[in-house]
Amino acid sequence: MQNNSVRIPYGELFAILQKILLNVGFEGDRARHCAQLFAETSRDGVYSHGLNRFPQFVRMIKSGVVLVAAEPQLVSSFGALERWKGNRGPGNLNAWYCTERAIAISRNHGIGCVALANTNHWMRGGTYGWQAAEAGVIGICWTNTMPNLPPWGAAEPRVGNNPLIVAVPRPPSHVVLDIAMSQFSYGALASYRVRGEQLPVDGGFDSAGNLTRDSAAIEMSKRPLPIGCWKGSGLALLLDMVAALLSGGSATHQIEPLPEHETNLSQVFIAVNPASLNSAASANIADEIIAYLHATPPVSGTRVRYPGERVIEIREQNLVEGIPVDPEIWREVQSLR
Amino acid sequence: MQNNSVRIPYGELFAILQKILLNVGFEGDRARHCAQLFAETSRDGVYSHGLNRFPQFVRMIKSGVVLVAAEPQLVSSFGALERWKGNRGPGNLNAWYCTERAIAISRNHGIGCVALANTNHWMRGGTYGWQAAEAGVIGICWTNTMPNLPPWGAAEPRVGNNPLIVAVPRPPSHVVLDIAMSQFSYGALASYRVRGEQLPVDGGFDSAGNLTRDSAAIEMSKRPLPIGCWKGSGLALLLDMVAALLSGGSATHQIEPLPEHETNLSQVFIAVNPASLNSAASANIADEIIAYLHATPPVSGTRVRYPGERVIEIREQNLVEGIPVDPEIWREVQSLR
Repeated sequence: MQNNSVRIPYGELFAILQKILLNVGFEGDRARHCAQLFAETSRDGVYSHGLNRFPQFVRMIKSGVVLVAAEPQLVSSFGALERWKGNRGPGNLNAWYCTERAIAISRNHGIGCVALANTNHWMRGGTYGWQAAEAGVIGICWTNTMPNLPPWGAAEPRVGNNPLIVAVPRPPSHVVLDIAMSQFSYGALASYRVRGEQLPVDGGFDSAGNLTRDSAAIEMSKRPLPIGCWKGSGLALLLDMVAALLSGGSATHQIEPLPEHETNLSQVFIAVNPASLNSAASANIADEIIAYLHATPPVSGTRVRYPGERVIEIREQNLVEGIPVDPEIWREVQSLR
Repeated sequence: MQNNSVRIPYGELFAILQKILLNVGFEGDRARHCAQLFAETSRDGVYSHGLNRFPQFVRMIKSGVVLVAAEPQLVSSFGALERWKGNRGPGNLNAWYCTERAIAISRNHGIGCVALANTNHWMRGGTYGWQAAEAGVIGICWTNTMPNLPPWGAAEPRVGNNPLIVAVPRPPSHVVLDIAMSQFSYGALASYRVRGEQLPVDGGFDSAGNLTRDSAAIEMSKRPLPIGCWKGSGLALLLDMVAALLSGGSATHQIEPLPEHETNLSQVFIAVNPASLNSAASANIADEIIAYLHATPPVSGTRVRYPGERVIEIREQNLVEGIPVDPEIWREVQSLR
């Protein structure tokens, strides 16, 4: 999965992250949980938002952007809708907490919605989809980001890539979609460039304004493509608008466009509890839909997959063989101890 | 907007549709409302799902697919979550009713969710976004469809293009996103072919499996492209799964893949009431987001637009100048009187 990677047992990866978080001031339980969320993200193959992102997370703690002891607080609520503020706490702990709240509300009201202002990058968005699905509820959540994507018809980044997660419980292999509104992240573009590979589809514009599969040209023009062109551009705008409106927090244009300064994000967490409808009849519908998808004749030799299917495969492999880590990043993380 | 179109006053268009619906058995108020929804769709420039779709709607009434007198019924409810069945009634009246229910629930619970089974094509999905926004609430809704889109990695249509609507109130110019999960509908592909124009971006695969901007080649291969490739393919699957799970109704694979037989659709309507959070501070956030978007330097001469902006412009023009109608379809509709 990564160039020249070595494999580290999950327990060893988790332990070093936990130790570093204790060193930078996390209280014990929170250090354990935060380290677990990072380690599980690498365990599941999303290396960019697991270990690889950890050094930046520590720098943002040291620079005072992320406040290790800050916890989310309820601002206002009405029925099944709640507004919280994140007090610039660790983004993954805040998002986890708000997902728990949305799940709890859905147990009492069938559906629950928590809007969170003033939080930090939630790392892997899929984490909160898996969390909802593990609890047996449907999860729908999204975050805004700093401006990092040009809206359709423009060259300047003025919308966020605003990841959207939709998760359906289907034990043990939940269906979890985790998509940003850009066709490729800057991390993905860099990976293709380093490997000397063309993108499989157009990923953005070159500096002359032509659509291209050349990742280096897109990195230079800073014009990655929204998914579905005008469609993803519009969806990014609406996700930002709803998140800012419901949370009372910042919209994308109010967020500082420097990765290590990006804070005050706004997020929405919705949980829907199908069991509240006493729906025995439809319990197997997710399985039926997956079976129909799996039976699709593929155009290459690879079976058509559902969102999250690869995650389960990679998770199982990584737990047995160890988590692949980039030796350079691994040395950097060890130096943080 | 349409080739060789003539312009008909809104009132005249509405009146003929109402008369035809009365003739095919609609009760008075329902004929008025159903005709209004079709006429407003053409008024707003979505001709494909307004007048142009009306002859097929009448044929589906005559063939017994759409039951003119059927009304939605509550199946079960829990807190802010309700399950309804549509009894194969007119899709636009059913969807309108369920949107009203979601809005009403959001007044009491902050958020409301209605899942609807056993309904028919809702025509223009944006209708229900405008409806929510006019009521001052955020609207999020989607429908499944018959299998009409190959999932990523396959050539056979096994997911639906499952339109998704997100709407934010911003009187008088609401922000309403209305996107199907295919980059171009078959209707749009046909329009490009007839005009002899290339698609502006890749719209699908040709029969050799190459991405192409040639609409005729895509119509022939029946391989339109999901928005964002694997991303929109995954989102289409999840929207279907959530709709079928919550409504207890059919999933895409259970829906007959012939346009005039397509019925038993499943839909979800969510309304969120921002006013319930007493949010004076964030009342202008939608305006600020739009102002920032509008200030983006465009790559062509055209200002960057927000979703729904063109609708307002076209609506105003069409109300003044008349609704553009295709003379052939207009004659066909007149013959239905």
